[in-house]
Amino acid sequence: MTHVHAGDLTLEEKAGLLSGRDFWTTQPIDRADVASIVLTDGPHGVRRQAAAAADHLGENTSQPATCFPPAVAVGSSWDPDVAEQIGEAVGREARALGVHVVLGPGVNMKRSPLCGRNFEYYSEDPLLAGVLATAHVRAQQAQGVGAALKHFAANNQETERMRVSADVDMRTLREIYLPAFERVVAEAAPATIMCAYNKLNGVYAAENRWLLTDLLRDEWGFEGAVISDWGAVHDPVASLIAGLDLEMPGTGGKSSHRIVEAVNDGTLDESIVDAAVNRVLALTRQTTEHAPESDARTAGDLDLDAHHSLARTLAAQCAVLLKNNDALPLAPGARIGVIGEFARTPRFQGGGSSRVNATRVDVPLTEIQARGAEHGCEIVFTPGYTSADVSSKAGNSEEMLQAAAVAVARSVDVAVVFAGLAEPDESEGFDRADLALSTVQVELIRAVARSAKRTVVVLSNGGVVAVEGWHEEVDGILETHLLGQAGGGAVADLLFGVTNPSGRLAETVPARLTDTASYVNFPGEQGHVRYGEGVMVGYRWHETVGIKARYPFGHGLSYTTFATSELSTEVTGPGTVEAKVTVTNTGDRAGAHVVQVYVSTTAGPVRRPVRELRGFAKVHLEPGEARTVPVRLDRRAFAYWDVERAGWAVAPGAHTVQVCQDAATVQLEQTVDLAGDAWTHELTFDSTVEEWHTHPTVGPALLTALATGVPSDSNIPAPTPELLRMIGSMPMQKVVDMLGDAVPLSMFQDLLALSRPATGAAATQGAS
Amino acid sequence: MTHVHAGDLTLEEKAGLLSGRDFWTTQPIDRADVASIVLTDGPHGVRRQAAAAADHLGENTSQPATCFPPAVAVGSSWDPDVAEQIGEAVGREARALGVHVVLGPGVNMKRSPLCGRNFEYYSEDPLLAGVLATAHVRAQQAQGVGAALKHFAANNQETERMRVSADVDMRTLREIYLPAFERVVAEAAPATIMCAYNKLNGVYAAENRWLLTDLLRDEWGFEGAVISDWGAVHDPVASLIAGLDLEMPGTGGKSSHRIVEAVNDGTLDESIVDAAVNRVLALTRQTTEHAPESDARTAGDLDLDAHHSLARTLAAQCAVLLKNNDALPLAPGARIGVIGEFARTPRFQGGGSSRVNATRVDVPLTEIQARGAEHGCEIVFTPGYTSADVSSKAGNSEEMLQAAAVAVARSVDVAVVFAGLAEPDESEGFDRADLALSTVQVELIRAVARSAKRTVVVLSNGGVVAVEGWHEEVDGILETHLLGQAGGGAVADLLFGVTNPSGRLAETVPARLTDTASYVNFPGEQGHVRYGEGVMVGYRWHETVGIKARYPFGHGLSYTTFATSELSTEVTGPGTVEAKVTVTNTGDRAGAHVVQVYVSTTAGPVRRPVRELRGFAKVHLEPGEARTVPVRLDRRAFAYWDVERAGWAVAPGAHTVQVCQDAATVQLEQTVDLAGDAWTHELTFDSTVEEWHTHPTVGPALLTALATGVPSDSNIPAPTPELLRMIGSMPMQKVVDMLGDAVPLSMFQDLLALSRPATGAAATQGAS
Repeated sequence: MTHVHAGDLTLEEKAGLLSGRDFWTTQPIDRADVASIVLTDGPHGVRRQAAAAADHLGENTSQPATCFPPAVAVGSSWDPDVAEQIGEAVGREARALGVHVVLGPGVNMKRSPLCGRNFEYYSEDPLLAGVLATAHVRAQQAQGVGAALKHFAANNQETERMRVSADVDMRTLREIYLPAFERVVAEAAPATIMCAYNKLNGVYAAENRWLLTDLLRDEWGFEGAVISDWGAVHDPVASLIAGLDLEMPGTGGKSSHRIVEAVNDGTLDESIVDAAVNRVLALTRQTTEHAPESDARTAGDLDLDAHHSLARTLAAQCAVLLKNNDALPLAPGARIGVIGEFARTPRFQGGGSSRVNATRVDVPLTEIQARGAEHGCEIVFTPGYTSADVSSKAGNSEEMLQAAAVAVARSVDVAVVFAGLAEPDESEGFDRADLALSTVQVELIRAVARSAKRTVVVLSNGGVVAVEGWHEEVDGILETHLLGQAGGGAVADLLFGVTNPSGRLAETVPARLTDTASYVNFPGEQGHVRYGEGVMVGYRWHETVGIKARYPFGHGLSYTTFATSELSTEVTGPGTVEAKVTVTNTGDRAGAHVVQVYVSTTAGPVRRPVRELRGFAKVHLEPGEARTVPVRLDRRAFAYWDVERAGWAVAPGAHTVQVCQDAATVQLEQTVDLAGDAWTHELTFDSTVEEWHTHPTVGPALLTALATGVPSDSNIPAPTPELLRMIGSMPMQKVVDMLGDAVPLSMFQDLLALSRPATGAAATQGAS
Repeated sequence: MTHVHAGDLTLEEKAGLLSGRDFWTTQPIDRADVASIVLTDGPHGVRRQAAAAADHLGENTSQPATCFPPAVAVGSSWDPDVAEQIGEAVGREARALGVHVVLGPGVNMKRSPLCGRNFEYYSEDPLLAGVLATAHVRAQQAQGVGAALKHFAANNQETERMRVSADVDMRTLREIYLPAFERVVAEAAPATIMCAYNKLNGVYAAENRWLLTDLLRDEWGFEGAVISDWGAVHDPVASLIAGLDLEMPGTGGKSSHRIVEAVNDGTLDESIVDAAVNRVLALTRQTTEHAPESDARTAGDLDLDAHHSLARTLAAQCAVLLKNNDALPLAPGARIGVIGEFARTPRFQGGGSSRVNATRVDVPLTEIQARGAEHGCEIVFTPGYTSADVSSKAGNSEEMLQAAAVAVARSVDVAVVFAGLAEPDESEGFDRADLALSTVQVELIRAVARSAKRTVVVLSNGGVVAVEGWHEEVDGILETHLLGQAGGGAVADLLFGVTNPSGRLAETVPARLTDTASYVNFPGEQGHVRYGEGVMVGYRWHETVGIKARYPFGHGLSYTTFATSELSTEVTGPGTVEAKVTVTNTGDRAGAHVVQVYVSTTAGPVRRPVRELRGFAKVHLEPGEARTVPVRLDRRAFAYWDVERAGWAVAPGAHTVQVCQDAATVQLEQTVDLAGDAWTHELTFDSTVEEWHTHPTVGPALLTALATGVPSDSNIPAPTPELLRMIGSMPMQKVVDMLGDAVPLSMFQDLLALSRPATGAAATQGAS
């Protein structure tokens, strides 16, 4: 393929390039040597369907591919290396399967634990999601396979996802829902971004020019192609004008026809078509030039065994040990009861378009038996419940199954109960209604815990489940989320201590659904969902309003112990800090610790969350090993979005750098004073009395003027502190109006002049 | 004054009528016999200033008038008779003082307990506020004195009140922030409505045509005059066009000049001027024709002693007994320690424009001594703290004062501690920062409670104070809020049981500020306050998210006991219910009980609060007396605001009528099934798969069509329940697009036809 440009093509050819040829491929132009490229679902594995089986529902068969841990697990790894290795491996498999763009990763925020698609997203925190997605995209694209960062933007629920308007204020968008996209665009240059189905503040994402052009291209400098989510386009011309480049899937020529018509009747400028065409051509070049042609891509290039092994290694780094009262790792020689149908019929990924046709699936029971044999353990299994029981919230326990489980529990040293959400309970396309495990499973866990010497629960769930009603009765909880096809092996490795758990929650586990920030505003109603909690999402909400989480964001235990010491901070600029902290493995096993650095401040004009994650690093340490970990806190680590200035701002003043065990637990902290961005308000008559009164030069002058300039026989009350407090929010113009002729206007005009910076004065000190 | 009309006046005369002559009066036109009328602050008393002392800050002297209980107290009475008697008395005093319009009452909702002006508002519930204000306005206007219902609308904070935009969605406005205004307009026809300072959804209330004209006049049928809050007008021409009639205070002719100019240069239609002029003329007629002329109004007509006595009687009906462990009423013959400076320097009203120059002030200590003498009690007083200590949050206790208080506490049968908020702590013009009593007072209460046999706390505060840290240590709490000038006598009557407490909280007392619905969104930032909690205000929030209030809305104890029985409900229409309940005084004292009727439902397409107050009645019962109380629940008692239909709607289905002790405690309930408003959706291709699937006729036909009409060799997945759930939120058009040619479009068109109502079919059954 040569460097074809829009100018080389006819209008009809150009319009044809702007929507798919069919469900999964773009339109080729043989005459001009423009290739068709293949896009498939992803991103934790390649879902390459045969043309005849095209659907976007995960229902029909796709070619076998490795199912790596989904994003919910990768988020819990807090480890960009994990994301990177998945991205690289998915890229390799995509190449082998003749795929040019794998759709994903998804960096939408987990606004509510009920979102049915949360298993496809990393976190409730934009920094964590952004760093992980950046690593994934870079690695995948290094294999010559394009990414499609999705779903842009504010697609944080499945309910009414194709029509609902996410009503989000600008600060909240900028601080919570956009930064992960922004980071990936800036640091990984994804080949494409996929626009979301929903509306953002009343305008379909697919037709939102502010989103797709003003912000994405003009402000962030995105140079890739914007593609639609499958079926997100309502009006192809309107989308094109807004900044969409490629509509998917194809519409049998209907969209191209409308674009041609619009150019011909003058309602669409052909230069807009050309710009989009050039971006589609560039995407085609990018994903075909630097990678072998499809024909040369054969599955034979791949070592699927190695990928399965990699999937196991990575999965083990994602699971989160929530609770451990000396129950884990399992002791050598122990008699172990493995209880729960999930131990032999595991859940390892979610439903919908991301569902991968796994090359093989590790069965936890089998893997536990294998590891158990190595550790001289005896393994007894009983199913405890049926698969059908899992999704029943109201069902009764199968008495015989539960009785058998209790019998096993009584006979063993430790019972390991596998529980979680049923596959039909969580999927793309709908949201969950509550956080509960099925009644049958809860009753089983309680019955086992009452009977066994020790009980460990292994959870498999894409969205958060509540642990109320049973967590206090068990000795250990291993939250695996969904670990991909090799999760069974990873769980065995973790239970026996072959691998030391190192995951940390990327999402708060609340005690109750009603404790969550979006509870009264999720999933919205009558076409709108109000993001009423603003920036107070996830741990930001819990810490700010003081609602204790059952397990806070960032929580996760290890089989070893770590000490954190010697926090140092150095202010390196008006809004940048270099922090260093020393971590020591004080236990007797190798393990990994996640250094979590938050910033807390009350400086500035906006309400800040009590703390926000601003840096993190996962460090692997041998027993006794210590390492000093540097964490660079850049300007954005301290900035808020200032609506009045329409930009990021660092408030001058105290900011506390906190090294935390989790979002609720500060280990070390230091307060730094930042110069921030000086922003001297020039006073006007619309400025309030308080703004005049607290102005460094005008304030004192005002009091003097009032004391000397107001006739003593007027009925104007004296400017006592009480009075100033009462009229503080009054614009000065109102005071001037009310005073009428009693005080000369010139007095106020003279005061106003004092607030104007003298020419050449350094009013920008500290700005950056 | 004859019936002058706009047509009788010159443009300059007309423009002159549309803003005040000065601070408190309108412009007269002697030539046309148009009188000047006098407006003054209110509404719990008349604040008539001499012209030379004109201010709107409550700072300068006004003529003596009776200070009745402010709205915070009246709200707690739950008794329209109390509001009516205050309205009538204020009307009488206004007439005597030559006042034509008294500004008030205020029916803004208590969105946050921090609002500095909450003492001027009735409640966090719009029904309670609306019913009370209606009674006040009717009674005051029956005296020939106009009311100014305020502050219209969404003026729920003092911070930045003159600039901030209250960003409120339509359903929340309609269900929470507007209904009290709507009720008063409909049922009491206030002479004027005062527009608020703030912006509503970005537009100044004073320039908000939707608010002042579309809603207020066209929809609600308001026929009075709209006046500005003092200084709320920014652009007199823009305000006039939006629907404002009278700008206050006067602007020395500037506004009139601009109006004349605008008419002359064609930017303002003179008919708009005429309409406003006619409304100002009508207001002048209404408030001068039916009342004696000012000159004839003399204070001699008034019996101020009788008004003071009335103020005492009414105040006693407002106080709320929060807690009582056999501590009250005070026993005859007891030795009583009265502790606290507030007992001799009482707080009885808030600061700002509503501050009345009271004709006299009852001192609680004096009144307790008088009542105590009647009951054979010995009264010992000690101040416990100084007035300066009250507003100090960080101060240390004055050791000697506290030691003296402890000594008194040890020596008495019961200690009565007077505590509350200092006058400078709450006022028009600023909001509070927290809910705490001063440290000195909390320490005093705790020290006394540790030392006295029994301890009762009497609270005086306009805004809610938290009782954490001490409420469990005392035996009784009497929350008086602010009771007006005769509150001291009322408190004595209540403490000794001369009057039986019958107030109920009109506002939730939370355990912590962070428990409140608006916590993260109050008071907003950078010019905007987001009403993120939507309709979940006050008890609606607490009950819906399950945060236990310290004392719930509707709570209040009595010296007698009541039994509630025999709830009956009769459905009298598609959305109306007659409820009846029997209340019996089961104790040995006369007393009053408040029947509180709430409605709870999950029917319909919007998220409803767990329950909402929909009816109430205060009944006075002699010991042993029983009465059956009817409560009519009209259509609005069951309706929600439907944004899609742009109207009120009653959802078909189950609605539970709950008779409650308070908002958290259901005593009796019955569920009724309402026909509601039938609203058959005609399906379109934009309707979702779920909407098609659940449609009564189309749904079954769709499944049949798919089973028979889809070629068996297609790759279309079967419509299993799982699949339908996953694609449920997809508009059918998307499905049609994706199916392409596999299924004929005609099949869907035929199905669509089934959803269209046949001509003449009764599709409106149940609508009203």
